[in-house]
Amino acid sequence: MHDAARRARVAASDLALATRQVKDAALHAIADALVRRAPEVLAANAEDVRRGRESGLAESMIDRLSLTEARIAAIAEAQRTVAGLPDPVGEVLRGGILPNGLETRQVRVPMGVVGMVYEGRPNVTVDAAGLTLKAGNAVLLRGSSSAESSNTALVAVLRDAVAEAGLPADSVQLLPCHDRASVRHLITARGLVDLVIPRGGAGLINAVVQGATVPTVETGVGNCHVYVDSAADLDMAVRIVLNSKARRPSVCNAAENLLVHKDIAERFVPEVARELSAAGVTLHADSRFAALAGTATVPAQDEDWDTEYLSLDIAAKVVDSLADAVSHIAEHGSGHTEAIVTADVRAAREFTARVDAAAVMVNAATSFTDGGEFGMGAEIGISTQKLHARGPMALPELTSTKWVVWGDGHVRPSS
Amino acid sequence: MHDAARRARVAASDLALATRQVKDAALHAIADALVRRAPEVLAANAEDVRRGRESGLAESMIDRLSLTEARIAAIAEAQRTVAGLPDPVGEVLRGGILPNGLETRQVRVPMGVVGMVYEGRPNVTVDAAGLTLKAGNAVLLRGSSSAESSNTALVAVLRDAVAEAGLPADSVQLLPCHDRASVRHLITARGLVDLVIPRGGAGLINAVVQGATVPTVETGVGNCHVYVDSAADLDMAVRIVLNSKARRPSVCNAAENLLVHKDIAERFVPEVARELSAAGVTLHADSRFAALAGTATVPAQDEDWDTEYLSLDIAAKVVDSLADAVSHIAEHGSGHTEAIVTADVRAAREFTARVDAAAVMVNAATSFTDGGEFGMGAEIGISTQKLHARGPMALPELTSTKWVVWGDGHVRPSS
Repeated sequence: MHDAARRARVAASDLALATRQVKDAALHAIADALVRRAPEVLAANAEDVRRGRESGLAESMIDRLSLTEARIAAIAEAQRTVAGLPDPVGEVLRGGILPNGLETRQVRVPMGVVGMVYEGRPNVTVDAAGLTLKAGNAVLLRGSSSAESSNTALVAVLRDAVAEAGLPADSVQLLPCHDRASVRHLITARGLVDLVIPRGGAGLINAVVQGATVPTVETGVGNCHVYVDSAADLDMAVRIVLNSKARRPSVCNAAENLLVHKDIAERFVPEVARELSAAGVTLHADSRFAALAGTATVPAQDEDWDTEYLSLDIAAKVVDSLADAVSHIAEHGSGHTEAIVTADVRAAREFTARVDAAAVMVNAATSFTDGGEFGMGAEIGISTQKLHARGPMALPELTSTKWVVWGDGHVRPSS
Repeated sequence: MHDAARRARVAASDLALATRQVKDAALHAIADALVRRAPEVLAANAEDVRRGRESGLAESMIDRLSLTEARIAAIAEAQRTVAGLPDPVGEVLRGGILPNGLETRQVRVPMGVVGMVYEGRPNVTVDAAGLTLKAGNAVLLRGSSSAESSNTALVAVLRDAVAEAGLPADSVQLLPCHDRASVRHLITARGLVDLVIPRGGAGLINAVVQGATVPTVETGVGNCHVYVDSAADLDMAVRIVLNSKARRPSVCNAAENLLVHKDIAERFVPEVARELSAAGVTLHADSRFAALAGTATVPAQDEDWDTEYLSLDIAAKVVDSLADAVSHIAEHGSGHTEAIVTADVRAAREFTARVDAAAVMVNAATSFTDGGEFGMGAEIGISTQKLHARGPMALPELTSTKWVVWGDGHVRPSS
């Protein structure tokens, strides 16, 4: 690992000076090579799928693991999208001329060497490599063993394409995925690695954050709530709850909790319970919600309020006030996305001011928290921490800054 | 500690909604109270000084520890300066209307609960409290035991003043300073504490960063270099080296290393060596530098290149090229401040592009890296890491962000 990190550092110092032209050429070369070499990637992927089936992987996981020609084409296309995004490097964020004549500029610079620890789908390998490269960084990828063959084949394609475009092949490196040691070395390589992004389940993220001495950005755990206020348009609320929960239950921006104001509970609860049940959602309801549901519910346990189901389940509860909803979210939310449905300006302002999360939605589904939806063109993950980046992370979030100061022999007077 | 952190969280949720008016009133109340209650602060400080003398603290440390009426007035005045700075909270950083009509805004919000672990001077207690308060955060202060009485007296004044202005007294809390346990609890209180800033020597910073599971920002270790290029104005170079080294040798932006291009070494080295020696600086020189110095030098050891002296010492070396200077800095620098003296535009551009540090100076002393000098009005430390904030940290660096999204019943189509 330390050898890989040292090679990455060397690569990073070249990448930091690469022009947008060269980096975009590398991204197009990656896209072309992925399409051209799809057969070898698909062959490697078939091995992972076969091994997954043999080891009894759930069919939903097999689906997440599987590549097809169409999926590879989409992954390649995403690289062209990243090539089309503005280069964050060199952007001047602040600056001016100080009273003494010194000229200051705070400019965006690459982060350096970025480590990525992730599970699941092989497309993350390519997405992460493309974004870190465009932001001028070298990347160390540590994927899951279930996708080992696919990741190996993909990284071979990536490295060849990057080298073909005149950038160091070591801009992209895959770390061994079988031992925990490679993760441990990665997250403790202070001075060699500038940032580690864990992307996956809560277990993976906790292990990385607890063990890391390298700075990390936590991503992806979403215990999201929809709060239906007393002043909500109830039809709108049903649509938003359904979309937030059932559009793609396995992703982090899916709602896991429904909070309903008591004043509209009698009318709203039966309606939303019927629609959720019809969509196949299991309701884990508190007693007040259950009493009004008019459809089968499961009694909510204490742990339900803290559970990110990632499935067709939702915890549901009647609350006495907006303040109660805010307190409940403060206690149980993961700081990802929280939504209010209301027609009342004051309630909306209160909720957006008081709720402490990466994204707060008014009259919109939680499912919109996404780099693509937010117009960032891509995302490497959704940060749920407050340091450095919060919410969808794309190119600017993969950079740091540097103050550049020009003078003419300036010395500082004694104070 | 966990009780204190929980009280801080409650205070932080009030502070987050406090208007600038109220926060500035609290800062003015702090300034007034510091002046009014100076006698009790000075009495407490006298105890620390007495204990320091008894335990044989060096006179320079006694000076750093000592408060006077004039110093308290200056500390109070700094609070009024912070009150005059713009409120970072609520600033809209990005935003727009998405193609589907959703309105997005990324706004600055307070970080929440900030922990500060620091050594030395009692003014840090007040400065840190004022800045974190203005940025809408609650602060947990863990100072050094050498300043215990002073810090206790100061925090009593701060809490009273904050409460008098209508904000929670628990916005400012002092943690026990005698056991290591309070630091350990602080830096592992994930979910309760949002950010810990260690400020002090390398030992303190390493201990915090290695043990922390809470996000941290490293501050303050500065192994800074001045590189005198072949195209330098040599008189200017002497002034910049002298100012960078000797203006205040004990601060992190002081230069600890001098790199001289071989082409001007013969003329420059004797000149700068004479001036440095005259200023009482000990030169730890490599053999090429020593041979030209014409004044007494000490042979540089390997560890000299990695030492932050914080004293009237400098490591000095002749290098063959700008590229060698850049490599040396990459290997030994701490990412704080690096300076080049040159009249050559190409050399200046090359150096500023290649050197990876919080601040890179062209024809200016390293001593300018400072929040006050950079026009930030204050600073809570100088970050030497790349995540979140790099260089002098002031109010915006003590905030996070939140996406606020307003819709009209928006749901996301299936993809």
